[in-house]
Amino acid sequence: MIKVGIIGATGYAGCELVRILSAHPEAEIAAISSVSFEGKKLSDVYPSYIYLNDMVCENSDEVVKKSDVVFAALPHGLSQELAAKCKAEGVKFIDLGADFRLENEDEYEEWYGGNFLDKALHEEAVYGLPEFFRDKIKGKSVIANPGCYTTCSPLALAPAVVNGLIEMKGIICNCASGVTGAGRKPNQGNHYPELNEGFHAYKVASHRHTPEIEQTLSKLSGEKVTVTFVPHLLPVNRGILATCYADLKDGVTYEQIRAAYEDYYKDEYFVRVLPDGMCADIHNIKYSNFCDISVHYDGRANKLIACAAIDNMVKGAAGQAVQNMNIIFDLDEKTGLEFIPPAF
Amino acid sequence: MIKVGIIGATGYAGCELVRILSAHPEAEIAAISSVSFEGKKLSDVYPSYIYLNDMVCENSDEVVKKSDVVFAALPHGLSQELAAKCKAEGVKFIDLGADFRLENEDEYEEWYGGNFLDKALHEEAVYGLPEFFRDKIKGKSVIANPGCYTTCSPLALAPAVVNGLIEMKGIICNCASGVTGAGRKPNQGNHYPELNEGFHAYKVASHRHTPEIEQTLSKLSGEKVTVTFVPHLLPVNRGILATCYADLKDGVTYEQIRAAYEDYYKDEYFVRVLPDGMCADIHNIKYSNFCDISVHYDGRANKLIACAAIDNMVKGAAGQAVQNMNIIFDLDEKTGLEFIPPAF
Amino acid sequence: MIKVGIIGATGYAGCELVRILSAHPEAEIAAISSVSFEGKKLSDVYPSYIYLNDMVCENSDEVVKKSDVVFAALPHGLSQELAAKCKAEGVKFIDLGADFRLENEDEYEEWYGGNFLDKALHEEAVYGLPEFFRDKIKGKSVIANPGCYTTCSPLALAPAVVNGLIEMKGIICNCASGVTGAGRKPNQGNHYPELNEGFHAYKVASHRHTPEIEQTLSKLSGEKVTVTFVPHLLPVNRGILATCYADLKDGVTYEQIRAAYEDYYKDEYFVRVLPDGMCADIHNIKYSNFCDISVHYDGRANKLIACAAIDNMVKGAAGQAVQNMNIIFDLDEKTGLEFIPPAF
Amino acid sequence: MIKVGIIGATGYAGCELVRILSAHPEAEIAAISSVSFEGKKLSDVYPSYIYLNDMVCENSDEVVKKSDVVFAALPHGLSQELAAKCKAEGVKFIDLGADFRLENEDEYEEWYGGNFLDKALHEEAVYGLPEFFRDKIKGKSVIANPGCYTTCSPLALAPAVVNGLIEMKGIICNCASGVTGAGRKPNQGNHYPELNEGFHAYKVASHRHTPEIEQTLSKLSGEKVTVTFVPHLLPVNRGILATCYADLKDGVTYEQIRAAYEDYYKDEYFVRVLPDGMCADIHNIKYSNFCDISVHYDGRANKLIACAAIDNMVKGAAGQAVQNMNIIFDLDEKTGLEFIPPAF
Repeated sequence: MIKVGIIGATGYAGCELVRILSAHPEAEIAAISSVSFEGKKLSDVYPSYIYLNDMVCENSDEVVKKSDVVFAALPHGLSQELAAKCKAEGVKFIDLGADFRLENEDEYEEWYGGNFLDKALHEEAVYGLPEFFRDKIKGKSVIANPGCYTTCSPLALAPAVVNGLIEMKGIICNCASGVTGAGRKPNQGNHYPELNEGFHAYKVASHRHTPEIEQTLSKLSGEKVTVTFVPHLLPVNRGILATCYADLKDGVTYEQIRAAYEDYYKDEYFVRVLPDGMCADIHNIKYSNFCDISVHYDGRANKLIACAAIDNMVKGAAGQAVQNMNIIFDLDEKTGLEFIPPAF
Repeated sequence: MIKVGIIGATGYAGCELVRILSAHPEAEIAAISSVSFEGKKLSDVYPSYIYLNDMVCENSDEVVKKSDVVFAALPHGLSQELAAKCKAEGVKFIDLGADFRLENEDEYEEWYGGNFLDKALHEEAVYGLPEFFRDKIKGKSVIANPGCYTTCSPLALAPAVVNGLIEMKGIICNCASGVTGAGRKPNQGNHYPELNEGFHAYKVASHRHTPEIEQTLSKLSGEKVTVTFVPHLLPVNRGILATCYADLKDGVTYEQIRAAYEDYYKDEYFVRVLPDGMCADIHNIKYSNFCDISVHYDGRANKLIACAAIDNMVKGAAGQAVQNMNIIFDLDEKTGLEFIPPAF
Repeated sequence: MIKVGIIGATGYAGCELVRILSAHPEAEIAAISSVSFEGKKLSDVYPSYIYLNDMVCENSDEVVKKSDVVFAALPHGLSQELAAKCKAEGVKFIDLGADFRLENEDEYEEWYGGNFLDKALHEEAVYGLPEFFRDKIKGKSVIANPGCYTTCSPLALAPAVVNGLIEMKGIICNCASGVTGAGRKPNQGNHYPELNEGFHAYKVASHRHTPEIEQTLSKLSGEKVTVTFVPHLLPVNRGILATCYADLKDGVTYEQIRAAYEDYYKDEYFVRVLPDGMCADIHNIKYSNFCDISVHYDGRANKLIACAAIDNMVKGAAGQAVQNMNIIFDLDEKTGLEFIPPAF
Repeated sequence: MIKVGIIGATGYAGCELVRILSAHPEAEIAAISSVSFEGKKLSDVYPSYIYLNDMVCENSDEVVKKSDVVFAALPHGLSQELAAKCKAEGVKFIDLGADFRLENEDEYEEWYGGNFLDKALHEEAVYGLPEFFRDKIKGKSVIANPGCYTTCSPLALAPAVVNGLIEMKGIICNCASGVTGAGRKPNQGNHYPELNEGFHAYKVASHRHTPEIEQTLSKLSGEKVTVTFVPHLLPVNRGILATCYADLKDGVTYEQIRAAYEDYYKDEYFVRVLPDGMCADIHNIKYSNFCDISVHYDGRANKLIACAAIDNMVKGAAGQAVQNMNIIFDLDEKTGLEFIPPAF
């Protein structure tokens, strides 16, 4: 059994890791930590866990000591030091925060306002989006688990990018996320009466996930890509829908697009390219690690429209992190993640 | 007092007309009709109206007879004959359906599968989006009240179009609508457990509102415009958010854009251009005739992003219809429509 | 025009008062205040009001000075002093807080932990539930506007109580309220992801509205009544449903019950006794001052079950306060409150 | 591996059975059937299952032939014949419908309007609420799986009943259910815009689950019990909260009540008696087989108030059916049902 530690277990992503890992046949949770709730039980914070997981939150040092692999779900800026400590102790490190996601330090500084504390460690870190970078993840020790928007947007576009079907200029990622994406801390914007029956964009063309989406698309395409990324806040608990728009290259047909998508994802268990006529819906993947993709064609404007739906807390956070753990420990990638999404 | 008739009063738009007109100081509801509920009380269908409006649904002939103006909220294809009858009787006709919205018969045939029965009547009909076509509406007898998506999308883009700030090619209208937009008839797709906690696109690049949005933008710009229009279904009762994307012409600055929007709408009571930093939210206009607009700038990709939020049943249907009535009867345009949107 | 002041305008009840009073034909808002937002515009707090009400929050002294009547929507304990000040200035005072609701000081101390600062003022204060105490309200200067649960529960039971149809022992008020009842301040319990898709009781048999419900039922029945009151939190914005249970006296028939309800409320515009077979639903009274009541009979257990639905922010707070204002200023009680509840 | 058949697989309970059984380590789904969708894939009806379960619906005869145990999720009246057929084939039968729940044929006739077709079969059938009747379920072949309201209401009251702490007269079960309880078929009442932001009672004191609750409480108490049962419809997908009221016998203290509950359920994995101060919340058990119970005391009115929360589709239907399967096949009762409820 893999001994797993979770740092930041009382945040939404950490708490979801506990749920998923509790059902994982090859892993056991060795220790959890929380700065805000040290000494308290996880089930004091999340009553749905009562009597099922009454582990007490320790401090992060204890967690590192007891673990073969540590998941960190922390506000950005707090993971670098921790990663170094894990490395020193020979503990694998999967970071659900943003510290290791951007490879370019200038971009990191621009969007997050911090620096790379240990450049060697950043060199070593791998961006953990398995459907694209599986081979690089294998055997690695420091994984930068992607953000939620940054998982579904590139998944929506990859087959078109890789096959050169679209122009790499002018791409738009119009996304909408459920409220858990904003975390556990209450504020006026996610106070029930002010969010319920509402819908709005936020951080328009200025969200920190922008350079991360661009980095992935640039890698896939081999050219420097700029995207317009606009997130919206949905009155639902879970789920992200990315509706992506791109100009098709001259002469590209819908049949080519469809074939490209079906082929590109034909061996990917967690990506479901939907049949013609269906539209990806967050309703259909919630509580699961699946990404549903629907591909659409606007012949009048010669555009590709690709929709991708994920559960922001699973494929967009904790589930993908476990998928990465499975890869680095050489397990079947699906282990512990095969649950069917509930129909309602 | 203007004597008002409502045909199709038991649909959502008709029912909303009753609510708004009941509070209108210069109008009184003379008669209502419904094919499905003839002989029944409106309050049998909508229990929120019980004892307040217990009018019995008659047939449409009775309604025309008793009215100075008739509002028709009918499935498309059923308004043309009715409009002719109203004209013959000297009754003004405001159509909430689609029959008179498209000026080009070929387009109507392509998207709706019907023909113009009386071409002269179509010539006479005016497209009732007052913020753009107020002068043409005055004194007219047949008004084509715009659809919901087709109200908010052009409102979001007009100042940029009219001032030549954006390229007219490649415009994207990414919209999301509350469920009332799909009407009163239950089906699997808006069955509560299958819609709640869901979000998806539908009729991608093939929705009938596409040519109507294009028609309005073409009139405003003076050139033939093609747009990519993708509607989504939101798990809320009311509201549409249009998030529109356009390429800025070279050298256009955010300051120019902002000035254009503030100037264009400076005398429009029902359009609220929000201050810098705010995002249009359907939460803030529900149950009202207001359209909130926020303007955003993506300098990295040189794009304009404009969001417009309306209540699909008010500014997107019944409220705008009453606004049109006010205009054709030479009343203050705000009459009966000045209610403040509730804060929650 | 009556000059109205609102103290505590940035809380939910205060904000709703602004919405309702803005449409009141005989009143104008002279000034508003807020401790937390003094110097800020109301529309900075509630963007739905932007450009429609951009009044700046002053301090409460200014408000008293400019007003004929002051509405206070404050946390309990803060109204007594203010009421005294208003009295000294000859300004009428309508308190949406709890300070003047309980007539018995011991009860006030037990449930709220405070004292009556000015006993004469408490003697003078009238409990403003117009359907029961209209005659006492007329001409008065200090009104204790009832709480939300304490409006709908007695309205559900009054006809049975007054006509002696039920036992006064063992009454149960099982209630469920929308989230606005908990106010504007965010906390973990009304953080969207933790409330959405949830439902639970709270403050079981220990909520402060208990003695207030008992006080009203005791007055109506002439005997000291104890009730079991259990509130629940509903994942909706607005509305309270009270489902009340009482043992029927021997031999009482459903026909007697029904006749009692219809007769008791026959002249009450704001109370709608629903026909046989219908159930009161918060969906049908939201955004309005109506109270829908349905009466049910459990012949097998010989119990009366009465359901009452109100909008907690209107009939349960701001609307009823305006109804009280209309009474003390000798206006038609319905003035400014006649809007039809929206059907969806 | 146990070969499982599901009849009525395209209804909500059937579909949930598929989800749960897909993850069951000792069972495999051998065949499914559906009258409405024979010949279609389950994933045509529920797109969340696409590519994961693309089984085709057969007819019920095929299902019986291929199975060791058959689950039937059918409208009432259709299970009796099927049960007989299964018996003849030596196939165990777990009925999620109502046909075998009531032991008294007169009651069945009164509430459901049908007769017992094969009295011997009814004698043989066991009521499958494991926490109460586990010993009788073992080794049986026909199980009447309880309804949703009829699982949580008796679970809320049992310890008080069994220990004689409450009067058996005057018990009230005030319940609220999520919309999935009403099934998959759309109708006006669960059309999204008419249910969302609503809450109401229905079938007040006349719901068919009444005699079933009474039957269980009568068995537990040894006396004939009559209850007042009032269900309400909640705007959530899943979950039932039962808030039950009973008069305490003289002198019973809260300490006695608490001890009774803790003791009665101390070995029940699926029942979680919550600590003092917590309230059972449907939010905390959704998608799981747990029943959370909170016990409350109204000393002023000498009443017990007990709240029980279950997921109506799991512990109230499919999960409990699998729990029964585990018992009759002599597996650990928790097998395949140990998943932690998600925290949001």
